[in-house]
Amino acid sequence: MTEDGRLIRGERTRTAVLDRALPLATTAGLDGLSLGQLAETLGISKSGLFAHWRSKEALQLAVIDHARQQWTDEVIRPAMAAPRGARRLWTVHDQRLAFYESQLLPGGCFFANAHFEYNARPGVIRDRLAAELADWMAFLTGLTTDAITTGELRPQTDAAGLAYEIESLGVCAVMQAPVFGPDTFRHARHALRERLSALATDPTILGDLP
Amino acid sequence: MTEDGRLIRGERTRTAVLDRALPLATTAGLDGLSLGQLAETLGISKSGLFAHWRSKEALQLAVIDHARQQWTDEVIRPAMAAPRGARRLWTVHDQRLAFYESQLLPGGCFFANAHFEYNARPGVIRDRLAAELADWMAFLTGLTTDAITTGELRPQTDAAGLAYEIESLGVCAVMQAPVFGPDTFRHARHALRERLSALATDPTILGDLP
Repeated sequence: MTEDGRLIRGERTRTAVLDRALPLATTAGLDGLSLGQLAETLGISKSGLFAHWRSKEALQLAVIDHARQQWTDEVIRPAMAAPRGARRLWTVHDQRLAFYESQLLPGGCFFANAHFEYNARPGVIRDRLAAELADWMAFLTGLTTDAITTGELRPQTDAAGLAYEIESLGVCAVMQAPVFGPDTFRHARHALRERLSALATDPTILGDLP
Repeated sequence: MTEDGRLIRGERTRTAVLDRALPLATTAGLDGLSLGQLAETLGISKSGLFAHWRSKEALQLAVIDHARQQWTDEVIRPAMAAPRGARRLWTVHDQRLAFYESQLLPGGCFFANAHFEYNARPGVIRDRLAAELADWMAFLTGLTTDAITTGELRPQTDAAGLAYEIESLGVCAVMQAPVFGPDTFRHARHALRERLSALATDPTILGDLP
């Protein structure tokens, strides 16, 4: 096998492991990930896994990257396809809820789980999760700011405050859905629909939101 | 020692263990509680602990009771001292945030942590947590309903929807506070203040909210 061939096979193995580790982390916890257990599940040797990640921590950081990639594909990219402004803000919320509804991850939201798991465990993992949350809130605040500067939301709207509200409705949805089912998503969508209607300079811009 | 004396001493030990187990569960996880570790920390024999709880699960259920008692003392009781209606609704939110700000529990919120920890682990613990969440949401919805029936909030207000929004702002606060600090609580209070002002039939009823 050529060196290129080995690199490709190595990359495939890496992706296959992360595809398996990400959902597992949402049920067993990010700290519950074990290189040994993953190797067994995938029928790979433990030393084969160590060739990719030298430590459990290195694997955990790679899983965070992988989760970020999934979030980008499932939530951010579809939102960026919507027109800049209030409709993009709506779409990012709606897509996030649809992602939760799809139950692609058996344990709900990788990031929400991980934040609660690591909120009192200082170290590299918590620092990395904090940086991810800061990036995400900066992204959301960018969208709320856009919706104000396009003139679709009233100029006195508090961009960071609205981003906080949108994040709140999403986090609570993934926490409550296992207990209350579809009502949860109905509340989460209804609340933002009402909020955007109240803040819009022209409520018709929102059209018929789903 | 009389039988009464033994019962009192037993009750004291039980409370001392739970006072220690509750904060520990917010950092190590509810599943991370260990009878052995607790016994060592408290300088009690492991068999002494087993006299109180026959299993780790029995201890976990007792910790949930203990957390509920703390939540009642710190959040619900102060809210019930406020006048029925919009001010009580504000107070329950404000007290909850003050409880988080106090950092009485090193890992934030026992219940939020536990919901995220157990969302994909069916069993007795998850069932009990679900029942606690249903009780809490019924309590919050009772308060929003009261605020509508007293005429302080507009009659068309969605009581369950508003309860969902209040819960969202609280859950997100305890998740984000370790990353963003006091801004988090400012956003969480500001959002409900604005929301209640918009829904109030007479905004002056709310007075100068803190």
